Amino acid sequence: MTNALRVDPARLWDRLMTHSRIGATADGGIDRESLTEADRQGRDVFAGWAQSAGASVMWDDLGTMYATVQGEDPTLLPIAFGSHLDTQPTGGKFDGVLGVLGGLEVLRTLRAAGVRTRHPLCLVNWTAEEGGRFPVSMAASGVWAGVFPASDADRWVDANGVHFRDALRAIGYEGQESAGARRFRAWLELHIEQGAVLDDSGTTIGIVTGGQAMRFATVTISGRESHAGTTPMEIRLDPVSAFVRIATACEASARAVADGRFTVGLIEVDPGSHSVIPRKVTFSLDLRHPSQTGLDHLSAVFEKAVLAERSRGHAVNICENGGSLELSFNPACVAAVRAGVRITGYEACDIVSGAGHDAFHIARICPTAMIFIPCRGGISHNSAESITPQEAACGADVLLHAILTLDHN
Amino acid sequence: MTNALRVDPARLWDRLMTHSRIGATADGGIDRESLTEADRQGRDVFAGWAQSAGASVMWDDLGTMYATVQGEDPTLLPIAFGSHLDTQPTGGKFDGVLGVLGGLEVLRTLRAAGVRTRHPLCLVNWTAEEGGRFPVSMAASGVWAGVFPASDADRWVDANGVHFRDALRAIGYEGQESAGARRFRAWLELHIEQGAVLDDSGTTIGIVTGGQAMRFATVTISGRESHAGTTPMEIRLDPVSAFVRIATACEASARAVADGRFTVGLIEVDPGSHSVIPRKVTFSLDLRHPSQTGLDHLSAVFEKAVLAERSRGHAVNICENGGSLELSFNPACVAAVRAGVRITGYEACDIVSGAGHDAFHIARICPTAMIFIPCRGGISHNSAESITPQEAACGADVLLHAILTLDHN
Repeated sequence: MTNALRVDPARLWDRLMTHSRIGATADGGIDRESLTEADRQGRDVFAGWAQSAGASVMWDDLGTMYATVQGEDPTLLPIAFGSHLDTQPTGGKFDGVLGVLGGLEVLRTLRAAGVRTRHPLCLVNWTAEEGGRFPVSMAASGVWAGVFPASDADRWVDANGVHFRDALRAIGYEGQESAGARRFRAWLELHIEQGAVLDDSGTTIGIVTGGQAMRFATVTISGRESHAGTTPMEIRLDPVSAFVRIATACEASARAVADGRFTVGLIEVDPGSHSVIPRKVTFSLDLRHPSQTGLDHLSAVFEKAVLAERSRGHAVNICENGGSLELSFNPACVAAVRAGVRITGYEACDIVSGAGHDAFHIARICPTAMIFIPCRGGISHNSAESITPQEAACGADVLLHAILTLDHN
Repeated sequence: MTNALRVDPARLWDRLMTHSRIGATADGGIDRESLTEADRQGRDVFAGWAQSAGASVMWDDLGTMYATVQGEDPTLLPIAFGSHLDTQPTGGKFDGVLGVLGGLEVLRTLRAAGVRTRHPLCLVNWTAEEGGRFPVSMAASGVWAGVFPASDADRWVDANGVHFRDALRAIGYEGQESAGARRFRAWLELHIEQGAVLDDSGTTIGIVTGGQAMRFATVTISGRESHAGTTPMEIRLDPVSAFVRIATACEASARAVADGRFTVGLIEVDPGSHSVIPRKVTFSLDLRHPSQTGLDHLSAVFEKAVLAERSRGHAVNICENGGSLELSFNPACVAAVRAGVRITGYEACDIVSGAGHDAFHIARICPTAMIFIPCRGGISHNSAESITPQEAACGADVLLHAILTLDHN
């Protein structure tokens, strides 16, 4: 430990626990999907806290919230940091929330210590980072960074047919400012690892050097609806069978390639009746690999499996839902995180992010880095997501000094 | 053609077309799932028509409707016939409905011709034959025949959490009589084939000698919910992967055995989010084979695949939803159908039913046979289900003379 400025661990933990009551589930998790009533409450509470920390709060036309504290030099672009307050339907207390409330704790610590930065500081809550309710993950940051056009938001619809913009309007967070209109000097994101590298090795801080290449898609396979009892196997055009063949090929390739990942998180069957061969199966495709070459290989196996089903007579529609190229974070920003580690004296190691983050999109147009802290057993997107108050504070300390390092350069 | 008594093809067709407006879908199909408002309307209309044909209408505590015309000898058990008026969510106009309205046409034809039978005649509409809304197919006939206990009905719940008995009460068709309290001299069921044997061979009538052995179950596989991006393939406990392996094994076995059938009509993924390895997958299992030995083989392959998943660490729960042993219909009843064919002079062949029918359950405790007519291309459980007015009438003619044959013996 050094005698550098530190955040208040108890104050940060208190805010994390207070906020975790919003959308709390019986098993200790959180269901606070984007643009729901719980999300609105989470935003309202955050806005109040940010104002108490001396920030002015605005939001853009996708609902992304910007809490800004002015710096000494109004001509400089803000140093920005934060993450997201929305969760998976069965999410935990820390994924995303730590980055936002950790950033808030940094603002409070600086204010309490009387530190005024040269750059404005901008604490951000990105809308719809989790691809739970709407079909796209890291949705608002993707538009902000120009990864997908703003018009894409017009076609985001949830499973109940509710449009993204209608849901946004309903919770009162549709702003005037165009997403992407404001720019940052840098983006820093504090997050739980959501993997077990740090926890297994007992390391306090992960200096994130980049992220996996990722492909996300919604795949729809059509077949011929018919009677389960009277239709011989040979003449069926069963979209469930086609899905099973595609999934078998993809899973085999993800297991054959080191660090490959293939996940189907969602399957819908139409019409969905016990004794009817379905007419349609829709499933989510999630392919990831640390290298672009590795992802391209997994994608090629998937495409080949799809071609085989098309030649059998199935119509297969692939709707790409974002994803990300292999990513290396900005050297100056990563260096600022290293400086934060050095100043605070915490144990740290370099790490590549397995999960996708808003930072991946933002990095396309803005110098970016990330800071990871461990979570127990690497468990995330789960009510069992767990960190200690001290771990949260260590992450916020490194964030604080990374910000100050960038501010001095 | 012989000069035997015939039904009125135009009158039968008119009733079929009029009834098909209830629950009609835009594409020409029917969505009249059991115990819905559409089912209530379908029942009300049927009850009115049956009364006009001289029948008194009652229903039991599972909602099964009995339209009875008294015979000359009140000490005799009724000769019963009919089928079901409920449909799959994307069903056609004739599956089940033909058997009920064909039976109604028989009553009208006998009444118009002044024929009074010795036995009472009982035209039946069984509740919840289609396993679309509730998890069990041939539900009410299964209880009637003692294949499953009446208490099973207490745990039939639809996908929206609505209980069978509540839905029955809501449409006003919960009667006082216990299902199974009344008995029949014989059961005859007229139905479309739902396969292509008759249509392909240009045969007018199928004399159904029995049915396939069938196993229906709802299978739930548990896994460990975790993050799609950070969880290595090697340490996952992914219930989708387990489902894919089980389905692969079952499909291979159904293709390897002549006339084997394996169908998954329903898959549900929990929590169902793009970037979350699910914690649970539920799917419907439908296994069929003309012989019990064949079905036992398919079942053994399924059980072995389940054991393999359990040894991987998955909990796998199998909830059996009825099904049926290999079945041979009653020789005297089949002979009556043959007599009906001989009297009417239609071309006929023997056939084994690929689909399940209420007759399968009823046959366990009551002399039973079935009559099939062709449907175009064997297509059923589909809006494209199609027959001609003449085909419907031929089936009803054979039913009429099979009834009279049984009545004379």
